[in-house]
Amino acid sequence: MKVLIVGAGAIGGFYGALLAKAGAQVSLVCRSDYAVVAECGIEIRSTLGEWQFEPAAVLREAGEVGESPDYVVLCTKVLPQIDRAALIKGAVGPDTAIVLIQNGVEIEEEIARAFPANELISGLAFVCTSRTAPGQVWHQAYGNLMLGNWPSGVGPRVSVLCELFESAGIKARAMEDIVAARWRKCVWNAPFNPLSVLSGGLYTSDILSTQESLVRQLMEEVCTIAAATGHPLSADVVDRNIADTRKMPPYKTSMLLDFEAGRPMETEAILGNAVRAGQREQVPVPHLETVYALMKLREYQQEQNARR
Amino acid sequence: MKVLIVGAGAIGGFYGALLAKAGAQVSLVCRSDYAVVAECGIEIRSTLGEWQFEPAAVLREAGEVGESPDYVVLCTKVLPQIDRAALIKGAVGPDTAIVLIQNGVEIEEEIARAFPANELISGLAFVCTSRTAPGQVWHQAYGNLMLGNWPSGVGPRVSVLCELFESAGIKARAMEDIVAARWRKCVWNAPFNPLSVLSGGLYTSDILSTQESLVRQLMEEVCTIAAATGHPLSADVVDRNIADTRKMPPYKTSMLLDFEAGRPMETEAILGNAVRAGQREQVPVPHLETVYALMKLREYQQEQNARR
Repeated sequence: MKVLIVGAGAIGGFYGALLAKAGAQVSLVCRSDYAVVAECGIEIRSTLGEWQFEPAAVLREAGEVGESPDYVVLCTKVLPQIDRAALIKGAVGPDTAIVLIQNGVEIEEEIARAFPANELISGLAFVCTSRTAPGQVWHQAYGNLMLGNWPSGVGPRVSVLCELFESAGIKARAMEDIVAARWRKCVWNAPFNPLSVLSGGLYTSDILSTQESLVRQLMEEVCTIAAATGHPLSADVVDRNIADTRKMPPYKTSMLLDFEAGRPMETEAILGNAVRAGQREQVPVPHLETVYALMKLREYQQEQNARR
Repeated sequence: MKVLIVGAGAIGGFYGALLAKAGAQVSLVCRSDYAVVAECGIEIRSTLGEWQFEPAAVLREAGEVGESPDYVVLCTKVLPQIDRAALIKGAVGPDTAIVLIQNGVEIEEEIARAFPANELISGLAFVCTSRTAPGQVWHQAYGNLMLGNWPSGVGPRVSVLCELFESAGIKARAMEDIVAARWRKCVWNAPFNPLSVLSGGLYTSDILSTQESLVRQLMEEVCTIAAATGHPLSADVVDRNIADTRKMPPYKTSMLLDFEAGRPMETEAILGNAVRAGQREQVPVPHLETVYALMKLREYQQEQNARR
């Protein structure tokens, strides 16, 4: 079983290491940390143990892979400035399954259009992991995956992948409707990620305790969009998200961590795509629209600052 | 003609100086800068000239005024933590007219309830003025006033006040419907003030060039509220505000200046009161609601920062 991970950051490094642990032959495409990772591999510090992940090969570009792998697993952030299809193109053969372990909603179609003949597997990671230094990944908590074929269904290659991850020690669920699962995750992400940035850096607990009503309105709008796109969520999804967040320790969202580090944020994948889906389906999403517009202003200001 | 100015900051210092210039006997209630102002008065640097404004008396509290003045002019910021009625109470006699030169919408009722027998004059200042040091006020541009009785009409004391200001060199318009004028000013304030803060410090020009659509939606909602409260604005008010803003030089809003200086912001007077009016009149104001909730989050974060 040959796997190529594209984007060997916190997510790609961690899940790649798990697949290798499970016996797959895992190579990495690694850009910024190439030198360190090519020499030493990736040191994994995890709730599952500590080990050195030594990839079969470390490449600068997907095209260097030689024989096409069984799976190409794309683990980059989803950003307008990243051409995801171009990143994987050189490694995708006629029998390669493309796997996305990425954030956001409606992020699959761009890839499906570029590779119409390939099997496409869409995946969600519920994980707290970070790249602490070049070649070092710290898996702090959680780790569950949801995987399913896009636009729907669970084929044999999804099952194989789930089994590999399970044998490495994490829960990997095969989902009949992975698109609905993306919308369900968006119910939490669409309010908390941007609100943590726009508030100037508040924890999820502070956001919830002071502006629960806005959080709920944003969540309800995501549910409305999901239903309009043919993926209705369960009626109690908002209440459950609120209750679960109340139980969490004070948490800094990934978008806030990116913002504070001056890194680009997944505003378009998480929020922009949701708003555009709402507009396309002609459901009113005024609260999401407002938060999205404010995030675009905040990004604009961040870019201006960076240029100074 | 005896006038007592309560709140001798940039606004109170400037308009008090103008009334003194016009021949009124003007005293000041001055808290933070008492020592300097009591000794030297206020130095005015203005487009109308430079002069030293020497008040008839400088008081620490309104109750020290002795004989009740003809006008008590309240020029503080409108903040939840400021009890405006208590600030002026000691100086308001049976024949005193109360004048508000303050920001916001629906800020009069609280005063009218506290002083039901007194004439109430509501006023709007279109002015760029700042307190550059204790006892120093810099009037940079504009200066027009709009004054009218609350809830409506123009009585003789409004006319007298307008004449005084006019004779001092600024335009003072007597307004039959000052409440509508407040809503008209809010059309500009409700988007640009909070957006400048939530964007992380953008100028009005940047906000308008990148998110005109959100600005328009917020403006339209203010118009809807104004109409629902019985003060319909002219149909082209949004277009005119957009066009006028486009002609302005890049401008930092007063709320942004307050925020950057760590001072409390007039979020409730400008935005909170508008949202509450919309909810009371049962008109949908989702964009304003969202921006208001985000401002409350930003304020909460600012307070937490200040406590550290």
